[in-house]
Amino acid sequence: MEPLDQNLQYYTDLAVEAKDMAVQRTGSEIRGVSVNEERKEYSVVTRIKVLNEEAAKSIGKPVGEYITVEAQGMSTNNREIHNKLSGIIAEELEQLIEFDQLKKDPTIFVVGLGNWNATPDALGPKVIHYMMITRHLYDEVPPELKQGLRSVCALAPGVMGITGVQTAEIIRGVVDRVHPDLIIAIDALAARNVSRLGTTIQMSNTGIHPGSGLGKKRTGITEEMMGIPVIAIGIPTVVHASTIASDAIDKLFSSPEFGGTAVQGYQKIDGKFKNRIINEILRPFLGSLVVTPKGIDELIQDMSRCVAGGINIALHPEITVDNISLYLA
Amino acid sequence: MEPLDQNLQYYTDLAVEAKDMAVQRTGSEIRGVSVNEERKEYSVVTRIKVLNEEAAKSIGKPVGEYITVEAQGMSTNNREIHNKLSGIIAEELEQLIEFDQLKKDPTIFVVGLGNWNATPDALGPKVIHYMMITRHLYDEVPPELKQGLRSVCALAPGVMGITGVQTAEIIRGVVDRVHPDLIIAIDALAARNVSRLGTTIQMSNTGIHPGSGLGKKRTGITEEMMGIPVIAIGIPTVVHASTIASDAIDKLFSSPEFGGTAVQGYQKIDGKFKNRIINEILRPFLGSLVVTPKGIDELIQDMSRCVAGGINIALHPEITVDNISLYLA
Amino acid sequence: MEPLDQNLQYYTDLAVEAKDMAVQRTGSEIRGVSVNEERKEYSVVTRIKVLNEEAAKSIGKPVGEYITVEAQGMSTNNREIHNKLSGIIAEELEQLIEFDQLKKDPTIFVVGLGNWNATPDALGPKVIHYMMITRHLYDEVPPELKQGLRSVCALAPGVMGITGVQTAEIIRGVVDRVHPDLIIAIDALAARNVSRLGTTIQMSNTGIHPGSGLGKKRTGITEEMMGIPVIAIGIPTVVHASTIASDAIDKLFSSPEFGGTAVQGYQKIDGKFKNRIINEILRPFLGSLVVTPKGIDELIQDMSRCVAGGINIALHPEITVDNISLYLA
Amino acid sequence: MEPLDQNLQYYTDLAVEAKDMAVQRTGSEIRGVSVNEERKEYSVVTRIKVLNEEAAKSIGKPVGEYITVEAQGMSTNNREIHNKLSGIIAEELEQLIEFDQLKKDPTIFVVGLGNWNATPDALGPKVIHYMMITRHLYDEVPPELKQGLRSVCALAPGVMGITGVQTAEIIRGVVDRVHPDLIIAIDALAARNVSRLGTTIQMSNTGIHPGSGLGKKRTGITEEMMGIPVIAIGIPTVVHASTIASDAIDKLFSSPEFGGTAVQGYQKIDGKFKNRIINEILRPFLGSLVVTPKGIDELIQDMSRCVAGGINIALHPEITVDNISLYLA
Repeated sequence: MEPLDQNLQYYTDLAVEAKDMAVQRTGSEIRGVSVNEERKEYSVVTRIKVLNEEAAKSIGKPVGEYITVEAQGMSTNNREIHNKLSGIIAEELEQLIEFDQLKKDPTIFVVGLGNWNATPDALGPKVIHYMMITRHLYDEVPPELKQGLRSVCALAPGVMGITGVQTAEIIRGVVDRVHPDLIIAIDALAARNVSRLGTTIQMSNTGIHPGSGLGKKRTGITEEMMGIPVIAIGIPTVVHASTIASDAIDKLFSSPEFGGTAVQGYQKIDGKFKNRIINEILRPFLGSLVVTPKGIDELIQDMSRCVAGGINIALHPEITVDNISLYLA
Repeated sequence: MEPLDQNLQYYTDLAVEAKDMAVQRTGSEIRGVSVNEERKEYSVVTRIKVLNEEAAKSIGKPVGEYITVEAQGMSTNNREIHNKLSGIIAEELEQLIEFDQLKKDPTIFVVGLGNWNATPDALGPKVIHYMMITRHLYDEVPPELKQGLRSVCALAPGVMGITGVQTAEIIRGVVDRVHPDLIIAIDALAARNVSRLGTTIQMSNTGIHPGSGLGKKRTGITEEMMGIPVIAIGIPTVVHASTIASDAIDKLFSSPEFGGTAVQGYQKIDGKFKNRIINEILRPFLGSLVVTPKGIDELIQDMSRCVAGGINIALHPEITVDNISLYLA
Repeated sequence: MEPLDQNLQYYTDLAVEAKDMAVQRTGSEIRGVSVNEERKEYSVVTRIKVLNEEAAKSIGKPVGEYITVEAQGMSTNNREIHNKLSGIIAEELEQLIEFDQLKKDPTIFVVGLGNWNATPDALGPKVIHYMMITRHLYDEVPPELKQGLRSVCALAPGVMGITGVQTAEIIRGVVDRVHPDLIIAIDALAARNVSRLGTTIQMSNTGIHPGSGLGKKRTGITEEMMGIPVIAIGIPTVVHASTIASDAIDKLFSSPEFGGTAVQGYQKIDGKFKNRIINEILRPFLGSLVVTPKGIDELIQDMSRCVAGGINIALHPEITVDNISLYLA
Repeated sequence: MEPLDQNLQYYTDLAVEAKDMAVQRTGSEIRGVSVNEERKEYSVVTRIKVLNEEAAKSIGKPVGEYITVEAQGMSTNNREIHNKLSGIIAEELEQLIEFDQLKKDPTIFVVGLGNWNATPDALGPKVIHYMMITRHLYDEVPPELKQGLRSVCALAPGVMGITGVQTAEIIRGVVDRVHPDLIIAIDALAARNVSRLGTTIQMSNTGIHPGSGLGKKRTGITEEMMGIPVIAIGIPTVVHASTIASDAIDKLFSSPEFGGTAVQGYQKIDGKFKNRIINEILRPFLGSLVVTPKGIDELIQDMSRCVAGGINIALHPEITVDNISLYLA
């Protein structure tokens, strides 16, 4: 029995899903978790606050704030909606960043996590491609121009299989030389429900924690590790294949039509048996099989522009929803 | 209930899987289907002949010969094994092509089907990238060199969403101008079992039939349509997500531990109920969700070289297992 | 002495340059060549008509109309200017196409010439990437939608080194199956002056003639060969290196400071000597060395969007300068 | 008069060219520069030692050792020759590295400089793609395996326009966290003669100095800056366009046929006049125009494999000329 697989079938990087699962498991709202929902243009914004360690334990996500923008329109091919969503991402991001807590004229370091050689993991590097980078020009710019632009630098270091180094080490090394005031880290995520793929953006002020993200197996990129605040932005690009198999079985048993004796049978055999079935189906790949839409390449392209647009608008006062198209070359 | 989805959960492009499913369904070997298995270096070769229309109907694959090379080594990162497998592909391909049935100095037209913008569908175009193309040089080459090289041309036209034209129409148009003697069409396939992903190559003399392949929705590329023989080569790069969900439920019920009352419950509710569960899990994507290994980009790269190597060896007497590395720049 | 090189040093695909060179050579305007210049937003539009065979011979370009849009803004990174230029390209293109001469509801076949594996030659395939393709949907679309969209199909076949087939043969094969009413062929061009790189678009109704374009060595894609009108669109992406060397020598001698005895020396030694010098500098590459801006990859990207935008606007009434950003995903 | 351009026309990153130019200028060998030439299979190896500061000043290259491997075969499409050349690169590299001066079980940090979005500048990042990376596995490997593999990590940070940070800062940041014992930095170079393009590899123990390389405008990556030895490896991928123009004029005047009065004219007008001519030809691009072979994309691919092969062989005892093909997936 591969323990990894057992975890994966219920795994999600989304706090909103983790919260829902905890509610479903316990049958009640979770203490220490506040939830606020707002309907915006083309989207629903959910703001979850994990207020204390106990709450963090209950939902398996660290203390902090998680903002989720859900928008079916992100996975449509409509650039106009994308620009609107960039504006909404920017609004929420600005709130999360708390610029007034940073020093005047802060330097922001945008980090694109993930592997450019693996399509569903390439979100981070692609977002970097669309970022408006200014730090190297900043000292040459006259003061009146600086009002419209903040100092922004970026790196997409690649994954450990490419570099041989923990990504967090590379980032920390750069932080120690460049002394930015804030990190924004972008990463592809794994969700629990396929309906999240390409339709949900999560932003949080908790940084990126060990074992989260699509690539896994990493040390965290957190304020503790980096010495400066870390905002994490992610979009689910995959659901683990074991989640699909597990869900099929769970759905079957939770269905009212399938009541009575069957459920008793199920309760007898339980998790281990279920895992064995899943492993038989997914062998020899197990944890490394992912579910994506066929058009994932195009989706990654669209989502990258959307997120990059949001970050560009949030960071540079000069860039707005109306002119963002001009900056996403 | 989406009928497409119902089909997809049992769908496979592999004759060897279709045959196995028919055997399982009927509980006996299929009349008119001959099967021959041979163990080769690093691989098992299965040759299936569908001898008549009745047999074709039973397994859902047209009359003809299907050769399957199964090799775990193809999805490892070992170039030496890849070259060996190219040699085995070449041996089987040569047998399938029947060069002695073609005219002397034939021209072979290699067609790379699929979408270069969608990683798991990009196998065909990538194979074309590695082909040794000679037709345009052929008339200028002195006769003594021609002994080592055959006249080969190629095209990767892209999919209908890119061209606006049925791929079969484009291919036929080129055939009518170039007058090749044989088509070899390469395509990414969908399998029923994840164990097939990146480990199985299918070659057949039946061409490519409407609705097969990863991209679907196409008219066939067959001898009937093209006026010349068509060899099809494919590798499964995806399993439909609905197959995974369906398998989870099926496995559960076929398990001896899960006997008695549950099975009765299942038999009552049957296919429609199962479909509804699957649709609930995979909504809103349904048919367009696919399962791939996380490292699909690299896998496609490796498989493309392997297949292209096999075709290059089979077509050009000068190219062998020992020197194939020099031709896959 | 390589004769190819001798040609290359004065070679240009631009009619406007060929005309200027002829004027300079003869010292007077060319009979049978009419020139009309118009200043537009961000650009200058020059319309050259080559009216008869004699004129064609004088400037080395076939009889027909050549429209040149010159715009420094195309090579800047300003998306707003790009969209404006797309609008201007569209205006000129519509005039050149003469839709009223085509049948009602025509099908237009857009062909992207060139090699996607060679950056400066990849313009054509990249333009295809941004085209709004509709032909395959056209029969399913209700009549009221058809008013906004024309039936458009496309192909980027690759170059002869990739396919083994003359590109004109592939195109003609598709024409014979699809029966379009017009071809628009896009190609990267070679110019005589580096100031043309990324700043000049040429559109003509003469098709593409043997030996033109960056890749050379091809049969023509003309109305005569295709049986339907062919509009050619091109942008210079390279200047041949031999042109630079040749120009350096010519400029030196045409300079007033460098008069008298030197010019006599030059007149004695002439072309052959000059060629030898050029060959010595460019050996061992000769004809295959090209001059491009360092940022050619980005330039190709920008120009492709600009041209594709223009074609999309010209072909589809529904697409305009105001909404074109939404169609260049 | 653009001073940059004046520099560029005689600019070279190759010590062997800089030395030749100095010899030509002064008419004698350069004091403090030792030159040793050895003929190897498919190649000529030239080892230049710049022994003191005076010599460094004379040829414009820092004190240290420069090894040049010249091989026409590198730009041919022959994989067998490429592997042989990888072996020769490895031999010279091993000598330059002086492993016995490093601590036992050293960690080597391979840095790919340059811009992956600009074809001729993409050499460094592409070499990283082919590197055998082991550092992250090294602690888990049993001692008997370690004999065959050294600990290697890598990074391709991108250029300042992408990151907003001096590349040297990023590298130093990583060095401070990872504590490697040696840096190997790969970069695309500019040469003075087109015959060098794709045919010459330079390795040196001097690191990379400010203003060298194709991208320019950078602080150095040197032992002084990094605190550990830095080996630099480069291949010329461009010649500046101004060099071609300048050479044309120089060749003309150095030609015996073009003697007497002309030379006097030239001597009167000299450098400023020449620069004005060059600037007229290359306007409006000046310094940013480069000369490359048309097939530069493929050339970069081939050279990257060749160099990566050499580094892999030099660093990992287990990897040899005979099995290197298996490691360049």
